[in-house]
Amino acid sequence: MRIAGRHHRTIALAADGWSVEVIDQTLLPFAFELRPLQSLEDAAQAISGMIVRGAPLIGVTAAYGVALAMRADPADASLRQAIETLGATRPTAVNLQWALTRMAEALQPLAPRLRAERAYAEAGAIAEEDVRCCETIGRHGLALLRELAARASGRRLNVLTHCNAGWLACVDWGTALAPIYAAHENGVPVHVYVDETRPRNQGAALTAFELGAHGVPYTLIADNAGGHLMQRGRIDVCLVGCDRATACGDVANKIGTYLKALAARDNGVPFYVALPFSSIDWRMNDGLAQIPIEDRAAREVTHVTGIDEYGRRLEVCIAPADAAAENPAFDVTPAGLITGIITERGVARADRAGLAALYPERDAPRRAGA
Amino acid sequence: MRIAGRHHRTIALAADGWSVEVIDQTLLPFAFELRPLQSLEDAAQAISGMIVRGAPLIGVTAAYGVALAMRADPADASLRQAIETLGATRPTAVNLQWALTRMAEALQPLAPRLRAERAYAEAGAIAEEDVRCCETIGRHGLALLRELAARASGRRLNVLTHCNAGWLACVDWGTALAPIYAAHENGVPVHVYVDETRPRNQGAALTAFELGAHGVPYTLIADNAGGHLMQRGRIDVCLVGCDRATACGDVANKIGTYLKALAARDNGVPFYVALPFSSIDWRMNDGLAQIPIEDRAAREVTHVTGIDEYGRRLEVCIAPADAAAENPAFDVTPAGLITGIITERGVARADRAGLAALYPERDAPRRAGA
Repeated sequence: MRIAGRHHRTIALAADGWSVEVIDQTLLPFAFELRPLQSLEDAAQAISGMIVRGAPLIGVTAAYGVALAMRADPADASLRQAIETLGATRPTAVNLQWALTRMAEALQPLAPRLRAERAYAEAGAIAEEDVRCCETIGRHGLALLRELAARASGRRLNVLTHCNAGWLACVDWGTALAPIYAAHENGVPVHVYVDETRPRNQGAALTAFELGAHGVPYTLIADNAGGHLMQRGRIDVCLVGCDRATACGDVANKIGTYLKALAARDNGVPFYVALPFSSIDWRMNDGLAQIPIEDRAAREVTHVTGIDEYGRRLEVCIAPADAAAENPAFDVTPAGLITGIITERGVARADRAGLAALYPERDAPRRAGA
Repeated sequence: MRIAGRHHRTIALAADGWSVEVIDQTLLPFAFELRPLQSLEDAAQAISGMIVRGAPLIGVTAAYGVALAMRADPADASLRQAIETLGATRPTAVNLQWALTRMAEALQPLAPRLRAERAYAEAGAIAEEDVRCCETIGRHGLALLRELAARASGRRLNVLTHCNAGWLACVDWGTALAPIYAAHENGVPVHVYVDETRPRNQGAALTAFELGAHGVPYTLIADNAGGHLMQRGRIDVCLVGCDRATACGDVANKIGTYLKALAARDNGVPFYVALPFSSIDWRMNDGLAQIPIEDRAAREVTHVTGIDEYGRRLEVCIAPADAAAENPAFDVTPAGLITGIITERGVARADRAGLAALYPERDAPRRAGA
C-alpha cells in the first residue's frame, strides 16, 4: 500500500537479488526504515524481535529465512536447522509452521545444489500468494461492507479493529484492513476506530500509521473504549485478523480481541475475522485447549516506548519499580462469538461445516481418517 | 493505609488548622508529595487536574473546597460561586454533587459569620463518614472473599480489579480494595490482578502503588488480558469501584469496566461493585441513557507519562503526530452483569429492589411520589 504516495510492500528481495529487505516495524510510526536480512539468524531475529510481525508476514519471512540458509549452506543439516531455528521464534501464529512445512516439502526431495534457487522461488511464490489472498479477502469483505453501508444510509461506516491486521501484518493489503482499503478505494465512506492494543501498541503505532499514510480516516481509542462505543451504536462492524484459527472456527488473535467479541455480541454488532487459508490449523478443534498462547516479557507491560517532544525515541516506565506483570500476547475468541470468517475463498460461518464448505479438500482427509 | 510502614490519608487538614493537604496523585507512583490547597481555586483545580480523583475523594475535596471559600468570604454569593465552580469540575462522579448539596444545605440557612466553622466541621464529618463507610464495605466484602477463599481450598484467591478504587480514591481503605485490605490483614491469602487502565494508567500508577506499599501481592496486566485470564479460570472474582450507580443498579465506572463484566458473565466469574451510599444517584433509573460520561483530552490517548531510565518524569507520544483520538473516561455496566453491590450497609442485588432493601429511606419518597 502507499506511504506518502509511494507503493510499498513489507518484504521484498533487495536490489542485489539475494538479500531480503523488510520494513523495521519496531521503529514505526516514528521512523520508516528498511532493514536487510542476509542470513538465517537475521530472519529469525527479525521475527522474534518483532521487526516483522503479523501472522502472514511471519510466514513469508520464515520462508525467506530458509532461502537465506540454503544460499549459505544447502546441506540436509542446514535445512533441518533452519526449519528448527525459525520454527522456535514465535509460538502462536500457525502461518509460521505452515510456511516452514511447505518449504521443507519443496526442498527436502531436491539435491542440495538445487535447493537455494528453489527456496527463493518458493518464498517468492508464498509472498505473491499472500498478496493475492489478501486482495481477494478485500473483495469479499468489500461486499460485506457495502451491504452494511447501504443500511447506514449515507453516513460513514464505522469499523472497529484491534491490533494490526493491515498490510504491515502481511505483504500487501492486509487481512482485516484489506476490505477497508477496498471500500475506501471504491467510494464507500469508511472510518476506522483503532484500538491502541496494549501492551505493544500495534494499533497506535502500525494501524494508525498505515491507515493515515494511505489516507483512510481513523480515530485512535484506548482498548477499554470499544464496549462503550458499541453500547452507543457507534460501531457498525468489528473486523479483526487472526494468528491461528481451528478447523471449528475458534480464533486466536491479539490479546483483547475476545473482549471486543463479547461486546459485539452484547450489542448486536457483527464481528468478522479475516484470514488467509494459511492461518487455519486443520489439526485443531478446540482453540482454548489447543492453541499455544505466547507469554511475553513483563517489561512490555511496565514500560512504554514513544518519542519525546524533541522526537527522540525512548522508553518510559509507567509502574512502580518492583511491579510484577504478566503479558499473555493472544487470546482465543470462541467460534460462537464470530459472525463470519472472511477468507480468500469467501465468507464462512465460523464452524467446522462453514470452513469445510470453503475448503472441502482440507476437510476430506479428516473425514476419510475418522 | 500504609506507605513505607506509615499511615496516610489522601486528604487532611494541615498543621495550620485551615489549609488542606492532599497527596498529589499525578506524581504517583514515582514521587510521593503532599500538595496544599489554600483556596477554592486550588480545590477546583485539584479535582479538574486529577491531583485528586476517585468518586469519594472528589466529594470530600469539594466539601473542603467550600470550607476554604467560606473562610475567605462567607457571603451568599461566595457560597453560590463555590458550589458552582466545584460542581463544574467533573461530570460523572455523583459524589461531587452529593457533597456539594450537603454542604449547601448545611450552610445556606446559617448566618455568614457562622459558615466557615460549620463548613470545616461538615467537610471533616464527610471525610470521617467516608472512612467509616469504606471500612464497613471492607468488612462486608471480607465475608464474601472468605466464602470464595473457602472454595479455593487453600490456594490464593485471585481478584481482578480495574482502575483505582483503593484508599487513594477515597480518604482511607478504599471501596473495591477495602475488602482486599481486610482479607490481607485477616490472613486470607489474596492476590490482585491489576488492570493498568489506559489511558491514564491509574491501575499501574495508583492501584499497583498502594497495594505494593501496603504489602498486598499483585500482578499488573494490560487491560486486554482480563478476559483471557477469566477463560483460563485464573480469576475468582472481579471487584471494582463506581463513579455513579443508578437506583436500578447500573454502574458507571472507569472506561473498560463493562468489558470485564462481560467476560465475567461469559466465564461464570462473580462481578461485584463496591460503593458508598453517596455514589448512588436515586434520581436515575437508566445508566446508559442518563449518566453523563466525561470526554477527556485526546492527548491522554496519544501520549503516555512515565519515568525514563534516569528517573526523570516525562511524556512520550505513542501515535502518529496527526492521529485523531477519542477518550471517553467512563462506561456503564448494566445491572444485569453485576453479581452484587457492596455498600456500607451490606451486599445488595444489583436492582431497584436490592438497593431499596438496603436504603428503604431513599426508596420511600420515590414510591410516595409515584
